[in-house]
Amino acid sequence: MRLETPLPPGSTIGILGGGQLGRMIALAAAPLGLKTHIFAPEADSPAFQVSDARTIAPYEDQDALDAFARSVDVITYEFENVPGETAAFLEERKPLAPGSLALKTAQDRVDEKTFIASLGLPVAPFAAVDDEISLGAAIARIGRPSILKTRRFGYDGKGQVVIRDGDGILEAFDAIGRQPAILEGFISFEREISVIAARGWDGAIAVYDVPENVHRNAILHTSTVPAAIPPALADEAREIGGRIIAALDYVGVIGIEIFAGSSGLTVNEIAPRVHNSGHWTMDACMVSQFEQHVRAICGWPLGNPDRHSNVAMTNLLGDDAHQWQALAAEPNLALHLYGKAEARPGRKMGHVNRLTPRQGR
Amino acid sequence: MRLETPLPPGSTIGILGGGQLGRMIALAAAPLGLKTHIFAPEADSPAFQVSDARTIAPYEDQDALDAFARSVDVITYEFENVPGETAAFLEERKPLAPGSLALKTAQDRVDEKTFIASLGLPVAPFAAVDDEISLGAAIARIGRPSILKTRRFGYDGKGQVVIRDGDGILEAFDAIGRQPAILEGFISFEREISVIAARGWDGAIAVYDVPENVHRNAILHTSTVPAAIPPALADEAREIGGRIIAALDYVGVIGIEIFAGSSGLTVNEIAPRVHNSGHWTMDACMVSQFEQHVRAICGWPLGNPDRHSNVAMTNLLGDDAHQWQALAAEPNLALHLYGKAEARPGRKMGHVNRLTPRQGR
Repeated sequence: MRLETPLPPGSTIGILGGGQLGRMIALAAAPLGLKTHIFAPEADSPAFQVSDARTIAPYEDQDALDAFARSVDVITYEFENVPGETAAFLEERKPLAPGSLALKTAQDRVDEKTFIASLGLPVAPFAAVDDEISLGAAIARIGRPSILKTRRFGYDGKGQVVIRDGDGILEAFDAIGRQPAILEGFISFEREISVIAARGWDGAIAVYDVPENVHRNAILHTSTVPAAIPPALADEAREIGGRIIAALDYVGVIGIEIFAGSSGLTVNEIAPRVHNSGHWTMDACMVSQFEQHVRAICGWPLGNPDRHSNVAMTNLLGDDAHQWQALAAEPNLALHLYGKAEARPGRKMGHVNRLTPRQGR
Repeated sequence: MRLETPLPPGSTIGILGGGQLGRMIALAAAPLGLKTHIFAPEADSPAFQVSDARTIAPYEDQDALDAFARSVDVITYEFENVPGETAAFLEERKPLAPGSLALKTAQDRVDEKTFIASLGLPVAPFAAVDDEISLGAAIARIGRPSILKTRRFGYDGKGQVVIRDGDGILEAFDAIGRQPAILEGFISFEREISVIAARGWDGAIAVYDVPENVHRNAILHTSTVPAAIPPALADEAREIGGRIIAALDYVGVIGIEIFAGSSGLTVNEIAPRVHNSGHWTMDACMVSQFEQHVRAICGWPLGNPDRHSNVAMTNLLGDDAHQWQALAAEPNLALHLYGKAEARPGRKMGHVNRLTPRQGR
């Protein structure tokens, strides 16, 4: 179902998922006069703390999904692993954004890479792996080092293993549980960047400046804007983002991870949602990625994505959040904590944006 | 009760009042990892939409107040007409900020003016009016034109009447219901400005730049920063704000309305809460008045009140909010709607902040 007319203030956005991304979408919806209804299985979901309505139920509970759909005007989600059946069920009842096509494409690494390559955009060499035979063929074609990843349900480095010369190939397949997989060739790159872009129901597109991302232990550590790459390369990345979001007939904010190396850009993966590497927009732009997502899915005019300040975003993992007093005392720092009770090691507890002066505004 | 140690993330702020100010305090608390519990008598309170917990009960319901106090770590309020008994009841149970002394002073126009004058700060000539005799004496001393205002429960121009030469004096007294009142002399002024200041439990003070305020029909229409007054006069206003907030042993954000004329500054009134004329801080400062209030009452370090942009705030009253689509399309405009269902004439439905370039940041 498509959204026919812009949703006026007073309307309700349904959000699947109650983590920090859903929470920040809800916080961005409120100043636009829009309410939020969070659907999540976990009773202590942080997004519940800032939402008008809450449903605690499994994503497979069709009675709960039906009642949820009836209570809202548009539906979005904060995570890419929404079950396909859930998305289809909801999309029959209310506008779903991003739609199930984009979701399906992003959920499967082989579909995703195939789609990107079909646009003539550069991706790493890849091959589908279903069994030992296709694994052998994939290794023969792509060589080593390469990375074996589950086709589905991977995030923050989970569900993947590097295969180097001398490594046991079957052991690698065992390590990911012999699930349907993709083998990807190693890309030599100097920097990781990403494109945060938005597209409305009317096809309007807005693309943010390109952050440079540094990972630690396969989890995003910092996003810095501007990235230390030539402006022409940043422009090329933004153009790639625009082509992908248009080709997917996408509605909402998308995050696209890209490698930048001496041989140019390689598209790595698509997240069909607001993205950790876009959190810097909360304090360095008039319109954050969260407000932009809300505008896009509700049929509002997209906001100005221009950046008014240079900025470095740093994730707060686990105990990092215990530094809240020192962080709160730092000038030109904006603190964003996620309302999570337990600071488990590696858990994303919040982030900070450190702004640095820039001429003019 | 005073707050002994800073409240860590995960703590809960209790807020009396569920209107737009409570709502914006709740929205500012969330990124600091703090929860909010709103206590308000109206079931459709806009602040409920963004809060973790809600109590719907009259402010005189001591059972409800007791349960509310038990569930929170600090208590604040969004309106100055909190009943004195309610404030005292809560203050015995949990830290209340601003405290009952500041609240009591601001609730009574005679107490308020007496307090300000006691600091040696300029106020309009005033006299208490309790009956016809004291009214006659007040008119004889202060002359006309002058303004007769109820001592308590006035806001946005309600509960006051101008008395000019030839006007019936008793009719004026009748018009305000013969309530205990204050007669104030007319002050000749060119501009209305205000001071938005914050003070922590530790006595630290932060004062924002001074906005210039324009009213229409006795309701704030615009606040523009910087004000078109000499910098030395703005500095003097900020200094006055600092003296008042310190003398009140105040904790939280205060709004102080001041007249600026050829003969200098005259303090008009104090609002013991976040203030409409401070809404511009939401987009023109790193730390808004709402976040500052949260930091102050929770014992956090006060944030940097510096302004990074010039800004004009305009209130959206009644039908003004129907322009949301055009406003949302305007670049360099931040929209803030309050989630109120019904756009009654004159009702504050939201505001916009229009930013204008400023060198540097």
